[in-house]
Amino acid sequence: MVKLTSAEIKAIKALGSKKFRDSEGLFVVEGEKLVSEALASGFKIERILKRDEIGEQQMARISALDSPSPVLAVIRKAEPKPAVAAKGLYLALDSVRDPGNLGTIMRIADWFGIDGIFASQDTVDQYNPKVVQASMGAVFRKTVLYCDIPQLCESFHAAGLPVYGTFLDGSDIYAADFKPEGLIVMGSESFGISAAVGEHVDARIKIPTYAEGPGAESLNVAVATAVTVAEFKRRTR
Amino acid sequence: MVKLTSAEIKAIKALGSKKFRDSEGLFVVEGEKLVSEALASGFKIERILKRDEIGEQQMARISALDSPSPVLAVIRKAEPKPAVAAKGLYLALDSVRDPGNLGTIMRIADWFGIDGIFASQDTVDQYNPKVVQASMGAVFRKTVLYCDIPQLCESFHAAGLPVYGTFLDGSDIYAADFKPEGLIVMGSESFGISAAVGEHVDARIKIPTYAEGPGAESLNVAVATAVTVAEFKRRTR
Repeated sequence: MVKLTSAEIKAIKALGSKKFRDSEGLFVVEGEKLVSEALASGFKIERILKRDEIGEQQMARISALDSPSPVLAVIRKAEPKPAVAAKGLYLALDSVRDPGNLGTIMRIADWFGIDGIFASQDTVDQYNPKVVQASMGAVFRKTVLYCDIPQLCESFHAAGLPVYGTFLDGSDIYAADFKPEGLIVMGSESFGISAAVGEHVDARIKIPTYAEGPGAESLNVAVATAVTVAEFKRRTR
Repeated sequence: MVKLTSAEIKAIKALGSKKFRDSEGLFVVEGEKLVSEALASGFKIERILKRDEIGEQQMARISALDSPSPVLAVIRKAEPKPAVAAKGLYLALDSVRDPGNLGTIMRIADWFGIDGIFASQDTVDQYNPKVVQASMGAVFRKTVLYCDIPQLCESFHAAGLPVYGTFLDGSDIYAADFKPEGLIVMGSESFGISAAVGEHVDARIKIPTYAEGPGAESLNVAVATAVTVAEFKRRTR
């Protein structure tokens, strides 16, 4: 049985916080599936810790999961790539706070072949352990670039590409006459797209509801992202 | 300050478990928004407990949330409605285990005007506190009927209505020539649709991926439900 020093345990646990992930340039993934995806991904693996080698008790101490998995890896973060507004379909997230939502959106972006994901600085960190788990490995194929969203919208405009935003009073995405390229902005769970970002949106779009009588007031942001992206991609076929 | 007896506290906490929700016919909702939806819903409210009246400490004892909200209500469950295979669009869930997924699917069903939701007996309980929270009030407008899914499929067949199932090797939902009515079966998070249920599916469908190179292996079940239902509903327009 390998004994970890208390400094080692502390260093791994510290990666639960963004401050230490940023200063160390490292993040943690847990579970056999995610660790094997990490190994295949080209990301630099700093350390792999197996329950068989360190024992159940030590694994429980370093794990962020309720039921610790058989394997945990410490991985070097990817270098963020510069933002380029090129032809293609991009996503921008304006203050998405829930880690499960960001992870799910990364998985959606991966499935639908989104060309890039941008997020406001107050969006949850892509290397947050809950984001990593919810991404189901998309974290190794898609990178989120944190930036100023109004400025990003302007760079799309400058490149002659449209900026779409989802609003509850927008035009029906099925009826709207839009090009299936450019930037789609998704708003926060509680407040939607902020006024400051909304000013830079060219086309306000909406997923229609079919409820008869009173129904849901909104869709979850990851669900809305999927339905919107699926429709944009359908139009490229 | 109202003092709750320890029997009262125990009775409310017991509703965190399905066994007691079933025997008492009650469930709990928390938060101002959900409680106000409950009040407007026509569901019978058995008791409302406010933090202002019972104090923070007692609220923390009865709450299932990490940060207890200002209000909690104990509500009588709706009577399950009998299954009727009529013209319309229905969902069936085969072993969906995650409460967040079921709550999100109920919210999706609400938004898209799904005519009924069915689920296998081993699907998570619709009155589980985490399902209720994730449903964002859809729990007051949509009821899940737990039943035998193969038998349900046969009742749709008997009524001349098609049964669709989502499979990773299914036909592209955009290319497939399907009627936008009948039953859509969604599988479990880990295993998809079971073999026993799969035998009763008429058409195997799939949301196409657009990833170039290696990409996500699947979509989250709630996300897949939304994209599928959105496409079926688009065809009814």
